[in-house]
Amino acid sequence: MKISPQCPACLLNRVYMESSIATEDEEKINRAVEEAIKILAKRFPERGINAVIATEMHRKVYEVLGVEDPYKKLKDRANEVALRFLPAIRDFVEKHDDRFRAAAIAAIIGNTFDYGVMGHEVAEESFMEYFKKQFSKLVIDHTPEIKELCSGKVVYLTDNAGEIVFDTLLMAEIKKICEKLTVVVRGKPILSDATLSDAKLAGVDRIADEVLTNGEGAIGIIEEELPAETLERLENADVIMAKGMANYECLSDSWFKPIAFMLTAKCGPVAKDIGVEVGDMIAMLRL
Amino acid sequence: MKISPQCPACLLNRVYMESSIATEDEEKINRAVEEAIKILAKRFPERGINAVIATEMHRKVYEVLGVEDPYKKLKDRANEVALRFLPAIRDFVEKHDDRFRAAAIAAIIGNTFDYGVMGHEVAEESFMEYFKKQFSKLVIDHTPEIKELCSGKVVYLTDNAGEIVFDTLLMAEIKKICEKLTVVVRGKPILSDATLSDAKLAGVDRIADEVLTNGEGAIGIIEEELPAETLERLENADVIMAKGMANYECLSDSWFKPIAFMLTAKCGPVAKDIGVEVGDMIAMLRL
Repeated sequence: MKISPQCPACLLNRVYMESSIATEDEEKINRAVEEAIKILAKRFPERGINAVIATEMHRKVYEVLGVEDPYKKLKDRANEVALRFLPAIRDFVEKHDDRFRAAAIAAIIGNTFDYGVMGHEVAEESFMEYFKKQFSKLVIDHTPEIKELCSGKVVYLTDNAGEIVFDTLLMAEIKKICEKLTVVVRGKPILSDATLSDAKLAGVDRIADEVLTNGEGAIGIIEEELPAETLERLENADVIMAKGMANYECLSDSWFKPIAFMLTAKCGPVAKDIGVEVGDMIAMLRL
Repeated sequence: MKISPQCPACLLNRVYMESSIATEDEEKINRAVEEAIKILAKRFPERGINAVIATEMHRKVYEVLGVEDPYKKLKDRANEVALRFLPAIRDFVEKHDDRFRAAAIAAIIGNTFDYGVMGHEVAEESFMEYFKKQFSKLVIDHTPEIKELCSGKVVYLTDNAGEIVFDTLLMAEIKKICEKLTVVVRGKPILSDATLSDAKLAGVDRIADEVLTNGEGAIGIIEEELPAETLERLENADVIMAKGMANYECLSDSWFKPIAFMLTAKCGPVAKDIGVEVGDMIAMLRL
């Protein structure tokens, strides 16, 4: 999916936000935004993939700010909140006849909210209320076809910290039926995306056959950066489970297939590209 | 006031929004955003005034889009809505002992809301409720000192269409006590800012001694663009009434004085520069 004219404003907003989290030094923040604009000026006219431009941008911003992982606290909190609600979500999923579908929806709901703004103040009751309300909102539902493909070799591309905790419910369902389950996380900290330490905290390593990375921690999948092992798994997968918008942006026009895109469309450009409304959830198979 | 690192995202968002209003041609919208990014890449590192950069940017965007006034409909609607509520606001102002202060606050409230999203569906009742709620929120109130200076030559710098209708209440109060009232509007259409036709519709020409323009329609005041007559009035004013954020951005460090800044702080950078919170209203005299 190509970058939309709505993306640059959103990208710069994110850069400002993360710079403000990382430092109070106004001059550093100015330089971070300046470098981000330079990258936009160079890359936007090429009309590439937003997540790829964002990757280049956030790497440069981290360098200017001199930080390795400005989202560390937010990610820790996201994991903590998700782990607290996991038992209730698991109970809910286990009550369904089609557990694969229920777990898939739970994993997509995990992609919906911003854990950063959710904390101890979120009562279990209101969280479950939200969860149940969301549960009926899967507007594209290819879960039966996706489940069928999960009998083979499955590669599961994760998205955010926090979300990865809910992913474990779906991974457990896949593991019951698959030939092999490979989970791929980011190879380095970037935004609020899950890395190896988040995967471990969520217990992914106790479910999957292997946990690999995308190499240099791109926001999504940049083929040139993939370790040979990860590339091989993607090439030979019977189905790639791609969580979140960045993986969609990177893979919607890729030759890897089949891909099951599992996400909440959180912005106009992605929703439009898929053909749904902002806020809609999808489990969409591209053969 | 210098551009803040928060401004670029906001500027690009505005560019996207106005491009979407003006055309459905995605390629034109892309080019408009591209040109805006180019201007940012050149100007942001210079740390100039946001409103000046925005002026250059929107002019270029209008050129790319091939439009003269993409906000025309929104401005017409803003004027229409404001004219509809004017009698009720006038009644409210006239009930106050200090009519100058009441009219000043009404004019600042006029700077608060986005008329574009208000229409016929806004009941007079709920509008007046909002108005009365806002009325007590003037956190910096130099209206007594400002009123005193209004006995001399007054230059009134307007901001938006719609808002200019409420400005007439304050202009009428000024006219009662001043030596001369000069009103300055934008010389060409830019954003939702008031031009000569809006001033005429609002009846400004029947109140003020003269209505001048800022020349080429900058968003605010760019000294080099001012017609000689307008520059002379500003130089010799006993007080300059400067409405809105763009006039603040342009004049907060200028040598023109005294200036009465009358605005609602609608964004973080302007609020921070003034030392108030977002949403606060001010009538602040700088001698």
